[in-house]
Formats: sequence, structure tokens, C-alpha cells
Amino acid sequence: MQDQENIIEGRNAVLEALGAGRPVDRVYVLDGCQDGPVLTIKREAKKAGAMIKYETKQRLDQLSQTGHHQGVIAVCAAYAYTDLEEILKSAREKGEAPFLFLLDGIEDPHNLGAIIRTAHQAGAHGVVIPKDRAAGLTGVVARTSAGALNYLPVARVTNLARTIQELKQEGIWFVCADMDGTVMYDLTLTGGIGLVIGGEGSGVSRLVREKCDMAARIPMFGQIDSLNASVAAGVLAYEIVRQRLRGG
Amino acid sequence: MQDQENIIEGRNAVLEALGAGRPVDRVYVLDGCQDGPVLTIKREAKKAGAMIKYETKQRLDQLSQTGHHQGVIAVCAAYAYTDLEEILKSAREKGEAPFLFLLDGIEDPHNLGAIIRTAHQAGAHGVVIPKDRAAGLTGVVARTSAGALNYLPVARVTNLARTIQELKQEGIWFVCADMDGTVMYDLTLTGGIGLVIGGEGSGVSRLVREKCDMAARIPMFGQIDSLNASVAAGVLAYEIVRQRLRGG
Repeated sequence: MQDQENIIEGRNAVLEALGAGRPVDRVYVLDGCQDGPVLTIKREAKKAGAMIKYETKQRLDQLSQTGHHQGVIAVCAAYAYTDLEEILKSAREKGEAPFLFLLDGIEDPHNLGAIIRTAHQAGAHGVVIPKDRAAGLTGVVARTSAGALNYLPVARVTNLARTIQELKQEGIWFVCADMDGTVMYDLTLTGGIGLVIGGEGSGVSRLVREKCDMAARIPMFGQIDSLNASVAAGVLAYEIVRQRLRGG
Repeated sequence: MQDQENIIEGRNAVLEALGAGRPVDRVYVLDGCQDGPVLTIKREAKKAGAMIKYETKQRLDQLSQTGHHQGVIAVCAAYAYTDLEEILKSAREKGEAPFLFLLDGIEDPHNLGAIIRTAHQAGAHGVVIPKDRAAGLTGVVARTSAGALNYLPVARVTNLARTIQELKQEGIWFVCADMDGTVMYDLTLTGGIGLVIGGEGSGVSRLVREKCDMAARIPMFGQIDSLNASVAAGVLAYEIVRQRLRGG
């Protein structure tokens, strides 16, 4: 479900987009294609932080809108990413303890947009998403965020677990959503905090969960499994807001 | 965006569906059509609690899937509605103070499904929706509810403001989401409670808001207007859950 305006096809067009610094999310390359231009594209894509995915000709033909992809299709983000330091700086400038959202594999662009909207309204300083296993900042995400994407910085990192490890040095505590965790009302969620939300199907991955300081459970009384991912993010975010306002 | 299986077209088919007690949400009738069979359909639809909407031939042609609507198209709910008494009975049987959601004009079926899912998981006893200005219980709603619609009763009422008035006699207090209200953490939301959520665009209508005992504000720090309707419902619902668990 990519927006049409965000797809770039053909070797020259993709190389130009990378050279111009457009926020390329991922590049689909024909599996087995190893000629010079394609190697250049792969190198530049890597430098730009884009994911490279190998696909069959059939799949590329499906993705193609022009029919002339020449074995290379790039998907651009509708919005540019910032880096982590920008997010931390924004917290410092406001004189607030950092409040981040880290999304571990939110693949539905509607959920991603709704979570970015919630993060902004809850007073978070930024959102961190991994390069793989995540929806990019497409037009759908921008629309579902209801404008929040214009204000809230989103950073993209290679390895979420490693990022958590690094951010702990900044005095940030990490809490993940976990059905086997402690009821959220019993946790202390004040100070610098990173809220880790797992993907719709699989939840927070083991490696990321192991890096978290706390696991928070939303109490549930129904006979089904869970809440919608963006609703769960909102519920946890506002328990953090409550504690930040009330001091725990 | 109705599901195909839920549309019934043609005079005989619609009359049979009404006679068989299928949960008809609304009946579209060709504007100005006043002959005998149509009057019968209108009478039966009214008896069954369905909305009647007058439409132009052009609009009916658009809605029609068979091209043979004969001026009458019925839209059925994928799930049957219960009545208010069933919801109150369910609370009594569990020995719990009633906890209801009242949705004032949620027209997006994805939001309706997500809110039904949240209501069930938050331990609510039922959801009340108005006959007009609301999405019906279509297949989309059922899917987005992730199964919650199988467990949680949904009642449909003619006049939400009047229903609130009646339910106050049962000792239920009503709180609506309102950006000009009191910060939700400062309200007492224990005991029998009805949470009133407004539609995506317009919020809670004036007549309904005037019947509410309390107006709750979700604190927001961002530069946009609001949260997604299903996220806002989740955030408010879980402040109620917190107070029910902790006694305020």
C-alpha cells in the first residue's frame, strides 16, 4: 500500500533520488542482479540508511507502476527522519525529562500514524523506529497522524536493542508493553522514559524486551487477547502522562 | 463501505428479511415512492427499529449490487443488537457497578470496532449506540473488534440524551470526553459509570453533553487538535479502570 508519489523506478531515477538526499526507506532489487549500476545503487542506498530487499521479477512487476523498473524500485518516506540526538536535544531545550516512543515492528501504517499522533499529544519528544520490520513514513502515515508528523521528530535506527542500551546512558528508563508484566499502575514511570510498543501480531521481540527495565501490563478483563496496538500505546502513554503530572 | 453480504435489494427480499427478524440497520427508499408495498416496508422497518432514509434513484443505483433494487435497499447488521436491560442485567449478574460506553456518532466502522474491542477488554458491560449517526454492526466492525463483538452486547437506542436521562435512575453517572472539561485524573469515576465518546469530527453533541454529569479532558501537549477517537476512548476507559481498581 505505498502512495504512488513515493515510488521511484529505474536505475537512474533511483540513483538520482539517493544522490539528492531524498529520504529513501527501502530499495527493492531484482534478486541475483549484480552489474555495475546495481552495485552502485546498493552502495549508495546503504550509505543513506535504506533497507535493501531482494525480490523476484514477478514481485517487482507487481510493485511497478510504470512497467519500467529495470530491476530497481525505491520507496521514499513522505517525511524525512531525524536522528536520536535531535530528539534528546528537543527534550533538553524544553527542560523536560526525555519521553520517547520506541516502536518494535509496527507494520500497519494506520497504527503508525495514530501512534505518532498520540505521542505528540502526550508530550513525547520523539518516536524511534527500526529500519526493518516497520512501516515507513508514507503519505498514509502522515494523514493518519493528523498533522503530528509535521511537529514530532521520528528517528530510524538499525538495531533497537542497541539503541536502548545506548539511551540508558542518558538516564532514560525503558518500559515495554507485556501481557506478563506488572500492572502499569504499580510501576514508577516518572523521569526520563522510553515506552516500547510491539507490533500488532508478535508484540515486543525478545531481544528488545530483555533490554527493558520494566514490563507493563494493561489490565484486561475480556475474553479476547489484546487491544489494538495504537489503543494500547495510548493507554500506556497516558499512564506515563498521569505519573509525570502527578509525580507517580 | 458495506459488506456485500449485508445488503438486501428489492421489495420482496427486504420484506422477507424484516419478517424473518434479521437485524436490519437501515432501509434506503426511493424518494417520493409511496405505493402499497413500499408503505408496508416502511411500516415493518419502523417496527424493527431500522432507520429509513430517502435517497435519489442515482444514489440507490450506486448502492445497488444487483442493479434490481426496485427502489428499496436494506442494510443488515452482521450482529444482532441487544437491549439496554440486557446490559444492566449482565452487570448485576457479575455483581459489578455498571460500566457502559455510549457512542455519540462514531461513523467510522474501524473506530467502532476498535472501541468495542477496548470496551470489552476494559471490562465494560456493553456499548450503546444511537440509531442514526452511527456505523452499524457490519462485518468490518466485527473484524476490527477482533472477536469482542461475540462477547460484548451492543444496544441501539433512538435518542441518546433520553437514554442517559433514564439510566441516571439506575444510579449511573455519565462522563463525556470534552476538551473544555476537567482533567480526567481530577474526576471521581468510580461506581456505576457511562463513558460518552463523540464522533470523529464533531465530538459529543450539545444535547448529549448537557445530560452528562461530568466532562473529562485528556491532557494534551501537542500542536494538533485531538487524538484518534478510538485512542481517546481507550485512554478515558483506562482512567476509569484505574479508579475502579484503586478506588479513585
